[in-house]
Amino acid sequence: MRWRESSDPAMNRLLVIGTGLIGGSFALATRKAGCFSHIDGHDSDASAAAAALRLGHIDAVAPDLSAAIAAADLVLVAVPVATVASMVRRVCESNRTATVIDAGSVKGSLLEELRRSGAMPPRFVPSHPMAGSEKRGPEAANAGLFRDRPVILTPQPETDPHALARAREWWSATGARVVETSAAIHDEMVALTSHLPHLIAYAFMNWVGKPHGGVPADFAGPGLNDFTRIAASDAAMWRRILSGNRAAVLAQYDGLAASMNRFVELLRSERFDELETLLAQAQATRLRMIEAGGQPDD
Amino acid sequence: MRWRESSDPAMNRLLVIGTGLIGGSFALATRKAGCFSHIDGHDSDASAAAAALRLGHIDAVAPDLSAAIAAADLVLVAVPVATVASMVRRVCESNRTATVIDAGSVKGSLLEELRRSGAMPPRFVPSHPMAGSEKRGPEAANAGLFRDRPVILTPQPETDPHALARAREWWSATGARVVETSAAIHDEMVALTSHLPHLIAYAFMNWVGKPHGGVPADFAGPGLNDFTRIAASDAAMWRRILSGNRAAVLAQYDGLAASMNRFVELLRSERFDELETLLAQAQATRLRMIEAGGQPDD
Repeated sequence: MRWRESSDPAMNRLLVIGTGLIGGSFALATRKAGCFSHIDGHDSDASAAAAALRLGHIDAVAPDLSAAIAAADLVLVAVPVATVASMVRRVCESNRTATVIDAGSVKGSLLEELRRSGAMPPRFVPSHPMAGSEKRGPEAANAGLFRDRPVILTPQPETDPHALARAREWWSATGARVVETSAAIHDEMVALTSHLPHLIAYAFMNWVGKPHGGVPADFAGPGLNDFTRIAASDAAMWRRILSGNRAAVLAQYDGLAASMNRFVELLRSERFDELETLLAQAQATRLRMIEAGGQPDD
Repeated sequence: MRWRESSDPAMNRLLVIGTGLIGGSFALATRKAGCFSHIDGHDSDASAAAAALRLGHIDAVAPDLSAAIAAADLVLVAVPVATVASMVRRVCESNRTATVIDAGSVKGSLLEELRRSGAMPPRFVPSHPMAGSEKRGPEAANAGLFRDRPVILTPQPETDPHALARAREWWSATGARVVETSAAIHDEMVALTSHLPHLIAYAFMNWVGKPHGGVPADFAGPGLNDFTRIAASDAAMWRRILSGNRAAVLAQYDGLAASMNRFVELLRSERFDELETLLAQAQATRLRMIEAGGQPDD
């Protein structure tokens, strides 16, 4: 048995719901790879959809979302975390063959929400591309955003193997490296590697802003710039991410707080030899991360 | 009355003590600007001096440090923080006309140490270029390191105006923007903008390294990479900087800890509206910093 989609992959149709940074970059990358014969776009913000059309990310702004959903072979739901579940449900109920992916930063709360509202849709392949920018919107999109970046898939027991295979193919076409893990491991790891650094960078900027009214330009070096870059990220989006992954973020914060206290207590009590040992361990971990990470260090 | 130095600026001689990243970059930049007729280099690590010679940073490795000091018009003391004071004292006592600058990250403890060991040398102009890298050594040096970066001078009541003027000229020749402030303000501001971020980034890497054995490459995104880049910095150097500016770093940490606690308590108690308000304030401060900072955001 075959699915409805054309055996010629270039005859497939993509619908991007949410034509911002992620949606636009996915459209550009799969267009470059020749994956789709047509790319529809939809955004609750009409000006974002119009910009995506003007910038050539999409072929058309879907005038009727239901019709565009019905016609699609792949639907990328790239909307704010809080609305992913209801949109995935709507898409999967109106199109019984399309593969559906998202790009949300939190998986556990999304999957719980889907389970609470009915059966897990088998053609939904939960996806999180580990790529992004503190910049947002269609203007920030680029075809290379996912290149050599991991995309984490967290398929469920109900997930259809065919849909999973198609999701893997299409993500791979963007240049991304596809990885599978559980939602729990995903959420713990992103709490550590992304959500916690954002929380700290935001808290740092508020401390800088409070007593000092901002950093005098003369003292803002490249180290500070890199350390706080992620605090330029959208506050409303990060409210949703932090609240969506609340338990994992709090657990990781407790671990970090203990580590910070050890450093500070050694500095306070002038135990500089022990402090240097901790600094050297941290440096070694960071150097290992650079070697392992495939992440350029400059 | 004129000083000994030639009225032809290109006839001046530079001695760089410590031929690493800062010393090598200063030599390259002032060579490009035609400031000196001859550049001597000295390093307690003979291989670093040899590398600086091989890489064309310096014209000669000073075989006799005392003779090179005596012949210099400008001496850059770019040695570890803990040995700056004794080297500055030695240089100023063996050469009664040269201008002497350093590049140390902490000013209060250096100046105290100098005052404890005798009179403040009038031709020493305490200097801190707000430029650097987590990389070290002659290989990391480049002529553009100081370009458009602030250099903070913290002249003392005893500082000779002529030496201050020369120091300003020579730093300006590297492309740096010269700023003057007090040692106390300098130390407070670098505690906030540089030393505290380093401490947090090191503590973060130790928390990452401890339970997780490092970050799986699949979860190390560009945000994490930027946030922790400074934790690749040399542990021995940062032990000296943190201990040298201990009181100011601890004071800034207390402020940051209060800010982090506010964020975490709002997340813990699910007060997401208030959390978003703090996130938005932080984002606004960061965006203002980018606008004000002359620091590129990418």
